Amino acid sequence: MIDVNDVNGRILYEDDDHKFIWLGVDDVDSSDEIQTMQYLIIDHNRGVLLDPGGVHIFAHVVSAVSRYISLDNIDVIFYSHQDPDVSSGIAMWLGITKAQIHISSLWVRFLPHFGIVDSKRIVPIPDDGSTIKISENAELQCIPAHFMHSPGNFNLYDPKSKILFSGDIGAAVFDEGKEYVFVEDFAQHVPLIEGFHKRYMASNSIVKKWCERVRAINPKIIAPQHGALYAGESITEFLNWLSNLKCGVDLM
Amino acid sequence: MIDVNDVNGRILYEDDDHKFIWLGVDDVDSSDEIQTMQYLIIDHNRGVLLDPGGVHIFAHVVSAVSRYISLDNIDVIFYSHQDPDVSSGIAMWLGITKAQIHISSLWVRFLPHFGIVDSKRIVPIPDDGSTIKISENAELQCIPAHFMHSPGNFNLYDPKSKILFSGDIGAAVFDEGKEYVFVEDFAQHVPLIEGFHKRYMASNSIVKKWCERVRAINPKIIAPQHGALYAGESITEFLNWLSNLKCGVDLM
Repeated sequence: MIDVNDVNGRILYEDDDHKFIWLGVDDVDSSDEIQTMQYLIIDHNRGVLLDPGGVHIFAHVVSAVSRYISLDNIDVIFYSHQDPDVSSGIAMWLGITKAQIHISSLWVRFLPHFGIVDSKRIVPIPDDGSTIKISENAELQCIPAHFMHSPGNFNLYDPKSKILFSGDIGAAVFDEGKEYVFVEDFAQHVPLIEGFHKRYMASNSIVKKWCERVRAINPKIIAPQHGALYAGESITEFLNWLSNLKCGVDLM
Repeated sequence: MIDVNDVNGRILYEDDDHKFIWLGVDDVDSSDEIQTMQYLIIDHNRGVLLDPGGVHIFAHVVSAVSRYISLDNIDVIFYSHQDPDVSSGIAMWLGITKAQIHISSLWVRFLPHFGIVDSKRIVPIPDDGSTIKISENAELQCIPAHFMHSPGNFNLYDPKSKILFSGDIGAAVFDEGKEYVFVEDFAQHVPLIEGFHKRYMASNSIVKKWCERVRAINPKIIAPQHGALYAGESITEFLNWLSNLKCGVDLM
C-alpha cells in the first residue's frame, strides 16, 4: 500500500539547482489497466517530463507536475517508446506545453496516428543514443535499450542525480493495495517481475548486454515506469537476476 | 501511384456470402506519418474490421467501411498489436460500433490508456492463438506472430478467401506517389521492405519460424498493414527472402 504521504510523489534527489521527482500514483481503480509511474526532472527551474502517458492519467499528471513547476517551464518530454501507456497523450501534451518531444527515430512517423501532432517539435533519438542539454551544466543521456521490449526503446540517465529511468525494464505488476515505492526484499519482488520480463523482453542476449551497460553506468537508483524503484543492493540483485533470464524468443 | 479507381478500395475476394475487402488509401499528405491500410471481411452481412487505426484516419476508415456495410453490423475488430497506427482509435470505434475487440492478452491492460475503454468488450487472444467464429460456417484464425515486431502480435487468416492479414509483416515504405497495390516485381520491392524488417523484427530465429507456419497455411494473398499485397510467386519470394534475413538482435 502506498503511504498517503507518497500519493503526491517524492523528491528522489535534490540540490540547489536540480531535482529528480517521482510523481506519485494515480488513485483510479487499477483493476482494468496497468498502473504507471511518471517522473519530472527540474534543473534551474526548467522541466523534463518522462513518459507522461495517455488520456487516462492526464489530469493526474498535470496536477502532480504543477505542484513542482509551471507547465510553461516544461522544455522536454522524453518517451521511452511508443506504447499507449507511455505516449498516447502526445497531442494533449503538445497542446498545453511548449516542450519538444524526444523519442526513438523508429516511432517518429507513427506518432501522428495518436492525433494532431506537429512533427517539427519531435526530435528523433538515433539508434546509438543522444544527449539532451537542459541547462549550461546539465545534460541527460538517452541510453539504448532496444527490444526491451520495443524495437526502438531508450532509457534516460541523469548524471547529476545518478538516477536511471528504465521505462518498462524492472517493471513489476502488483496486486491492488500491495504496492510499495522501493524494492526492500528482492527475492520477494521476483514473482512480481518474472512473468513480465520473460514474456515481453526479446532474448537473453539482449538483456545481458543491457545489464553490462547499466553496470558500467553504475546508477544509484533504477526508476521504472511500473512497479517499484531499485536502489543499493537491489540494483545488483536485479542486474544479476536479469542477465541470466531466458526470455522472449529463447522460450518461443 | 494508386489508381483513382482504387482510392476507395478493392474487393480481393467475393462469393455469395463472403467478401474480403481492401479499404483503399487515405489521401492525407503522407510525408509526416507512415501510411496504413485497413481491411474489412464481410460474411452473411456481418463485418470484421482489421487494424482500423487511430484518430488520424478515423474519418477515412468510417467512410470507406460505410460504402460496404452498416457500422451497426461490425461485430468484431481485430488488432494485430498495440501500436498507435493500429489501435489508438479504440475508444472511438467502441463508441460508434457494438463490436468486440480481439487483441493479444499482453495488451489488454494497456488499452485503457488510449481513453475510455469498456474492458468487457475486449477478448484477449491467448499466446497460442484462437479462432473467431463469425457465422454458422465461417471462422477466422488468429495466427501467432510474436516479436514481429510486437511481443504480443497476431496475424488473421481467413480460410474462405485464403487471405492472410499479416499486420506489420511484409510492410513496405514507399516514396510518395510511388505506391502500388500488388507486388509485381519482388526484386524491385526488396529495397522498400529491407530496412523495416531488419530493424523492427526481433531475430532470424523468430522470422524463420513464422515463414514455416505461413508456408503450411499456403495463403493465396498476404495482405500487410503498410505497403503492398503479395500474391502468387511474390509470396514464395517474400518467404524465401524473409526466412534468410538477419534482423533485430542478430544485428545489435
